[in-house]
Amino acid sequence: MTDDTCRDTARISLAHGNGGRLMREIIEEIFAFHLGQQELDTAADAVRLPLDTGSDEWMITTDGFTVEPLEFPGGDVGSLAVHGTVNDLAVSGAVPRFLSLNVFIEEGLDIAILGRIVASMARACADCGVRVLAGDTKVVRRGQGGGLYLATTGIGRRRPGVDLGLHRVRPGDRVIVSGPVGDHGAAVLLAREQFGLSGNLRSDAGSVLPIADILLGFPGLRFMRDPTRGGVATVSHEIARAVGATVRLIERDVPVRPEVRSVCEILGYDPYYLACEGRVVAVVDAAAATDALAALHRGGFPEASIAGTIEAGAPRVVLKTSLGGERILPELEDDPLPRIC
Amino acid sequence: MTDDTCRDTARISLAHGNGGRLMREIIEEIFAFHLGQQELDTAADAVRLPLDTGSDEWMITTDGFTVEPLEFPGGDVGSLAVHGTVNDLAVSGAVPRFLSLNVFIEEGLDIAILGRIVASMARACADCGVRVLAGDTKVVRRGQGGGLYLATTGIGRRRPGVDLGLHRVRPGDRVIVSGPVGDHGAAVLLAREQFGLSGNLRSDAGSVLPIADILLGFPGLRFMRDPTRGGVATVSHEIARAVGATVRLIERDVPVRPEVRSVCEILGYDPYYLACEGRVVAVVDAAAATDALAALHRGGFPEASIAGTIEAGAPRVVLKTSLGGERILPELEDDPLPRIC
Repeated sequence: MTDDTCRDTARISLAHGNGGRLMREIIEEIFAFHLGQQELDTAADAVRLPLDTGSDEWMITTDGFTVEPLEFPGGDVGSLAVHGTVNDLAVSGAVPRFLSLNVFIEEGLDIAILGRIVASMARACADCGVRVLAGDTKVVRRGQGGGLYLATTGIGRRRPGVDLGLHRVRPGDRVIVSGPVGDHGAAVLLAREQFGLSGNLRSDAGSVLPIADILLGFPGLRFMRDPTRGGVATVSHEIARAVGATVRLIERDVPVRPEVRSVCEILGYDPYYLACEGRVVAVVDAAAATDALAALHRGGFPEASIAGTIEAGAPRVVLKTSLGGERILPELEDDPLPRIC
Repeated sequence: MTDDTCRDTARISLAHGNGGRLMREIIEEIFAFHLGQQELDTAADAVRLPLDTGSDEWMITTDGFTVEPLEFPGGDVGSLAVHGTVNDLAVSGAVPRFLSLNVFIEEGLDIAILGRIVASMARACADCGVRVLAGDTKVVRRGQGGGLYLATTGIGRRRPGVDLGLHRVRPGDRVIVSGPVGDHGAAVLLAREQFGLSGNLRSDAGSVLPIADILLGFPGLRFMRDPTRGGVATVSHEIARAVGATVRLIERDVPVRPEVRSVCEILGYDPYYLACEGRVVAVVDAAAATDALAALHRGGFPEASIAGTIEAGAPRVVLKTSLGGERILPELEDDPLPRIC
């Protein structure tokens, strides 16, 4: 660990898991430091699986899932564990094919809930065309598990000729958001009884394969990511940092449902940091942006929007507000919303 | 869930994780029931990864790791998470190549401990010739995590011409154990401060690749498994059930260290049910057994032993005791030793 990082704490805090600075540091300074080699790309959603199989290219990704409550309007930890990993392959330009599944079950979990969640997982697998090839279960002591933690590893076939990545992003490119942001985060917040709120909001949890299919038709597509932990703001920070440029989001062009805005106002969250589980943030060449957007609108994503631009400038994320002002969207430090994806 | 199973409980108990009957039932009745298809072989250590890559055959396996304490004499949860998955590929006749890694960290974990465990994992990867290609970390709330849970998925290349499996086991075959059993389980028990015991016992946690390399030289090799959860007795039950035969173990031929025997006597455990993390139980043709054993002895495994036989008869596991009597080794029901692998 270097002198200027992580010295504020010698213990893991919830903020180490929020997708922001502390998490990035611990990944770089512990995991990548010890396990790092060419293939461990900590900034990628999925990486090449170097099987030496000739023309085929296979990709691999992995993700862990902890959400409280385990079931929420629009999904559950099981469908999330399938869609999350499928989506990481989809935004990397791969066609998801296989999953492995790890299950950590807390002693005392209602077996009926486990059954519902696994059934939901099976439906999600069928929807996405993936199969679980290998699995393992562990039972942990009561009070040491949060009900159910899942981890999935996904393997998919890279579509030929696709070259996506932050290395392709340039100032002048446009940022497209495929639909309203923060639905998942807000729905999970509402589903927590302790807030005493109720609403009709549903998580957007789902497969982004149809979105990726549309966008991959445009050679001007540079990069896609599903804005899960840390939301659109955090993906924007990854772009800004990797490209060395400013990401400017336009408040009125980032779709946010009124219900999500209300929940955020009441509970003090910022929708740009709330997780989505079925949306894509894409960066496209300015010349392709309008056509790509029209294709999304025609393809069943009427709320997709060109939400911002990549601009030459310091690596930061700026929100142009509806009132014409500017607001810096800082990198996450404290935890705004633990345990929602 | 059928009428005659699992009705004794509607909630998950620790026994659902011990490798015995309840765990088998929940895997069959929930996971395989919903997610099952040809490829989900719940009885295999690793399965074929159907990549359509022509002559190459790739295999995949996955495993979760929870151990208390996180560090113990001879290993830690990190080395365990590498060796456990590497070993599942090794006993399936594959050469391990790649891992994915999921990390669930409990809020409050000492970052120095995390660093040591990840460094240990990196050493184990280097020893076994595997690389971590993809990883993910999640932080869970204090009191919901047991310190650190890990899950690894492993991909390896199947050695050409190898055909191993329970389908090849026949009455008359011999059971070889590669070394003393129960060291891991006993060492972890001792490492738990609450027992107030101390000893020089070290876990056997390590790679079984060298053992597999030797045994794979014998065409009479039928089947290999690393006896982790539930120990040698539980592997014997899997064999007995799948083959429809009796597994007869000979007490004086199953190597158990005196220290392990003492720990078991004091704490009331049976060494045949304690986990090993660096041993192999192999079934070989009777004609090949003596040569295979000699090769193990020459190859650096002087304590390997022909520990029993497969016999025509009811599917059960019998221990012929040193006094000449017989003792049934039942399938695990209650949890003899949670959280050690």
